[in-house]
Amino acid sequence: MNKSLQKLIKALHQKKYRQEEGLFLVEGEKSVVELLSSTLLTKAVFFTQNFALQHSNLLQKIAKTDTELWQISATVLEQVGTLQSNDAALAVVEMPENKVLLCPQNSYQIVLADVRDPGNLGTIIRIADWYGIHQIVCSLSTVDWYNPKVIISSMGSFLRVQPYYCELPAYFEQNAHLPIYGALMNGANVHTVQFAPQGIIVIGNESNGISTDLLKYIKYPITIPRFGGAESLNAGIATAVICDNLRR
Amino acid sequence: MNKSLQKLIKALHQKKYRQEEGLFLVEGEKSVVELLSSTLLTKAVFFTQNFALQHSNLLQKIAKTDTELWQISATVLEQVGTLQSNDAALAVVEMPENKVLLCPQNSYQIVLADVRDPGNLGTIIRIADWYGIHQIVCSLSTVDWYNPKVIISSMGSFLRVQPYYCELPAYFEQNAHLPIYGALMNGANVHTVQFAPQGIIVIGNESNGISTDLLKYIKYPITIPRFGGAESLNAGIATAVICDNLRR
Repeated sequence: MNKSLQKLIKALHQKKYRQEEGLFLVEGEKSVVELLSSTLLTKAVFFTQNFALQHSNLLQKIAKTDTELWQISATVLEQVGTLQSNDAALAVVEMPENKVLLCPQNSYQIVLADVRDPGNLGTIIRIADWYGIHQIVCSLSTVDWYNPKVIISSMGSFLRVQPYYCELPAYFEQNAHLPIYGALMNGANVHTVQFAPQGIIVIGNESNGISTDLLKYIKYPITIPRFGGAESLNAGIATAVICDNLRR
Repeated sequence: MNKSLQKLIKALHQKKYRQEEGLFLVEGEKSVVELLSSTLLTKAVFFTQNFALQHSNLLQKIAKTDTELWQISATVLEQVGTLQSNDAALAVVEMPENKVLLCPQNSYQIVLADVRDPGNLGTIIRIADWYGIHQIVCSLSTVDWYNPKVIISSMGSFLRVQPYYCELPAYFEQNAHLPIYGALMNGANVHTVQFAPQGIIVIGNESNGISTDLLKYIKYPITIPRFGGAESLNAGIATAVICDNLRR
């Protein structure tokens, strides 16, 4: 593995270079295996001997495509990647186009208004995937979807859920015909709300919730009822409980 | 702040010394403030000037008790504690007794059968607190409740929820009169289960679920229905969704 490739991979730890190159990293055995069966364009895969032994058929298939294959040691893989331990694989992948999908008739879109923590975003991607939600619309201030920590913590779900980054007011105006629910204090109890079959769920910032300038777009404020003393629930937990309620 | 105190605090990062001393650490402004209004016995509080300015009344009250007070710099606080940034406070606290509570007539106990990740345990403590569950029963293999990461990620909820570490088979046998629900694959749909007003919820290990030797105690296997492609939900997320369903 030559120096310039090593430099490229290390650069892709940073958002600035990911955006310049239109590339991101996928790390770890399970995620790379799932990636290679997906429709995302993989530029290159770096893998260890261990991975090659376990996935020889898959690698033979990939060898017939334009994807570059490089066998390297786990030591080098861990040096260039972000995982502390990775005796498996790392892939360099092309970012798909940033495009909005039509909200399906019997499903929802999740809107993240300034979610900042990569672990929270990864968890929310996994929850969206579990509950059959295919798009997450993110404010421009939301943490970068292609941050390696987000990709890792989504546990492969980034392959089945698509991001769309945009200015939220414009998105809300274009979707004014849909019911827009927002997780707020003092909203309607999610246990008794009659959720529409199609709609939008808005989740705000971890500390400050949904910002004042966006409140006017929230037609239906909703709240998870509390039975004890905790002040709040984490953004990922709140998303899961709301998705579970709207899928009942 | 003398060397032997510094050494004690650093030793309390490790489970072995926490157990030997019967002490643990509470860090950060909000947690320490809440702690000082709780019934837990605080041996000593180390705080910065910044904290003293903002909480002078509270510190005056504490000065009349047996709790030692030490004003130190944020630099020293960060050296001895586990938080990267802490311009507030750190407390050394006595572990309460490891004792089982009676399960309240209209509430539940959560049982963690081998939950290993400190962040997951912290999140589960916060969820239990939100849903008014006062005790979490932990297998001896479950991560230590008093691990600083657990305490920090519980966001103060460790003050309202009590742990009880024990051999689970004995606990299950003593509670055989209660309905014992377990999060499993292919159980009854949590959306349609009629939860009893009082009972026990068992959450298994992050990778392997509930171990085979405990399955015989699970009278009611339950499952969160899936609508999309994700393989699983994180242990904290699963706990939250189940608690939300049993509180409806």
